[in-house]
Amino acid sequence: MGDEAGKPNAILSSSSTSDQTLRALKPLRCIVKLGGAAITCKDELESINEENLRSVCAQLRQAMTPCKSSSPAKNLGMDWSRRLGNPPVSTIDEFRNKQALDLDNNFIIVHGAGSFGHFQASRSGVHKGGLNLPLVKAGFVATRISVTSLNLEIVRGLAREGIPSVGISPFACGWSTCQKNIASADASQIIKALKAGFVPILHGDAVLDHLQDCTILSGDVIIRHLAQLLMPEYVVFLTDVLGVYDRPPTDPNAMLLREIEVAEDGSWSIVKPNLPHAKGADWCILHAVEITIAAHDTTGGMETKISEAAMIAKLGITVYITKAGTDHSLRTLKGEIHSSPDDWLGTVIRSRRISSSK
Amino acid sequence: MGDEAGKPNAILSSSSTSDQTLRALKPLRCIVKLGGAAITCKDELESINEENLRSVCAQLRQAMTPCKSSSPAKNLGMDWSRRLGNPPVSTIDEFRNKQALDLDNNFIIVHGAGSFGHFQASRSGVHKGGLNLPLVKAGFVATRISVTSLNLEIVRGLAREGIPSVGISPFACGWSTCQKNIASADASQIIKALKAGFVPILHGDAVLDHLQDCTILSGDVIIRHLAQLLMPEYVVFLTDVLGVYDRPPTDPNAMLLREIEVAEDGSWSIVKPNLPHAKGADWCILHAVEITIAAHDTTGGMETKISEAAMIAKLGITVYITKAGTDHSLRTLKGEIHSSPDDWLGTVIRSRRISSSK
Repeated sequence: MGDEAGKPNAILSSSSTSDQTLRALKPLRCIVKLGGAAITCKDELESINEENLRSVCAQLRQAMTPCKSSSPAKNLGMDWSRRLGNPPVSTIDEFRNKQALDLDNNFIIVHGAGSFGHFQASRSGVHKGGLNLPLVKAGFVATRISVTSLNLEIVRGLAREGIPSVGISPFACGWSTCQKNIASADASQIIKALKAGFVPILHGDAVLDHLQDCTILSGDVIIRHLAQLLMPEYVVFLTDVLGVYDRPPTDPNAMLLREIEVAEDGSWSIVKPNLPHAKGADWCILHAVEITIAAHDTTGGMETKISEAAMIAKLGITVYITKAGTDHSLRTLKGEIHSSPDDWLGTVIRSRRISSSK
Repeated sequence: MGDEAGKPNAILSSSSTSDQTLRALKPLRCIVKLGGAAITCKDELESINEENLRSVCAQLRQAMTPCKSSSPAKNLGMDWSRRLGNPPVSTIDEFRNKQALDLDNNFIIVHGAGSFGHFQASRSGVHKGGLNLPLVKAGFVATRISVTSLNLEIVRGLAREGIPSVGISPFACGWSTCQKNIASADASQIIKALKAGFVPILHGDAVLDHLQDCTILSGDVIIRHLAQLLMPEYVVFLTDVLGVYDRPPTDPNAMLLREIEVAEDGSWSIVKPNLPHAKGADWCILHAVEITIAAHDTTGGMETKISEAAMIAKLGITVYITKAGTDHSLRTLKGEIHSSPDDWLGTVIRSRRISSSK
């Protein structure tokens, strides 16, 4: 993705409608990445971690509730489906008496696939392209069924918390790639949805590719693209671990990296903790950060996540990586973490420019 | 919708990308409308008529199987979800040995909502607009959850039959209206999906409206728009009754109208059967066609359906309305019905121009 990363203007100019709409848009507060591992059971095919999803949705609702609401009103659910009870949920009538939603919901949420989609994509090789092969074509269909079914469940989970969520599938709105790099990504509908007061919920998706027919567009790449275009105040990655470690988090000696600085040239350095072995050239430090890639992950795993986060930070947007459903994630989503205080666990990735101007 | 109907060029010019892509597209074979009443249990909230859906999907597969395939190959399913069995469906490996899909699947499918979506939309008044009202905003979210969940089930049903289906949600791809008339409807992603060998599956949806904030865009209006843009060989409406009747089909004296001609000025006449009371001015005949609109139908019911069908016929595209899952619908989907033979039950709506040139 590298050669495109430094050209936000090129991307902006590819969607002139977005440009115009953008001018009338109030600054985007936050883009949240819901990591696949945080909301699904990684080792069980197409299984949602209901408890985590509920907790993430509740925290998002809390983060969107303005501080002045000292005693928050009852959440009125927006999923009026049959399976939620018959006769349908009573909240419909309660909405009639409500004058305003009173939410600061200027958010975009992008989720990964976790145990949805990856299996279908990797078995068929959708990420490698070749739609003339029936296996790849079928895999494309199967992958989209799987990721859109997860998207629907996440939209439902958020709607139940009273967040006005609308699912927007990157394939459906015409996002495409050229040799796996984003080639066209019209964000005008996302912007219109935001302006209308909705929270767009995107996801990693199977998309068309100009050179290899098709590929998988990961949620991390989508986030970076949207961050370049919409310049949110901050970006939060919610994962199943506390943050970025210097080696696999399962290793008992793994150390949480609390603050990473990204220089203008894209190189990184770990500023907190002060690792004795991390003195020297930046590339050494980068390589000291060990990464694990799950066997089924067709989108690059943690390596992609970190490098995408670094590219966002380079734009001057601070990225927080933290564990979903914890007090740390709640504070992060609320926008309360500005440096990395000692009682907060997670990884802050910020531009060196911002750090030095503190 | 009337004032826009006669201006296909205006609609075409609104999507220049589609124009370019259109030139390289082989003629579209068929647009199918899967009526909500045909695939859901009308009187039971969010309940799919599984038997009908299975039968419709199987007939679509048969219609897409080229005639030369006298002994059709085993259908290899493209929905590889967990709920379909663990270990996952064996068809994945069978696809490896397949050289080509061998389907003439140059189709677009648009479905209605039936017992999905209508309830949510009518209770909240989404079709009447006003997103500043929490009830309408919540209804928009609830309606989209409901119709996209039906879309997912239909995509699954078709994929299980081996049809490479991709869900494309009109809201997500930016379709919008202006006082309920289509204002922008970029079909470029639909065209790209067709070119890549997929069958796009669209649906009636809650969309943004320039004047009243939001409304419901019905599947029938989507069909007419796509027909104007893509000029398919024929259009098929699959419903839960045999076709259009001169009075509610529950009336024992109801008579099936077998052939309707549409004149250049948009007026209709029933040419088969030869109804004695239908002599005279066309408007009399039109008004003789009694219609029923379900209480929850926010998109105009049969009246919209017939007038949209007439507008398609006026373009020179023959429209067939027939009962889903019957031998009549199978022959229609295959493109075998050219006039309305005596052993075929359904309603043909065609342009007078075409009838007179027979």
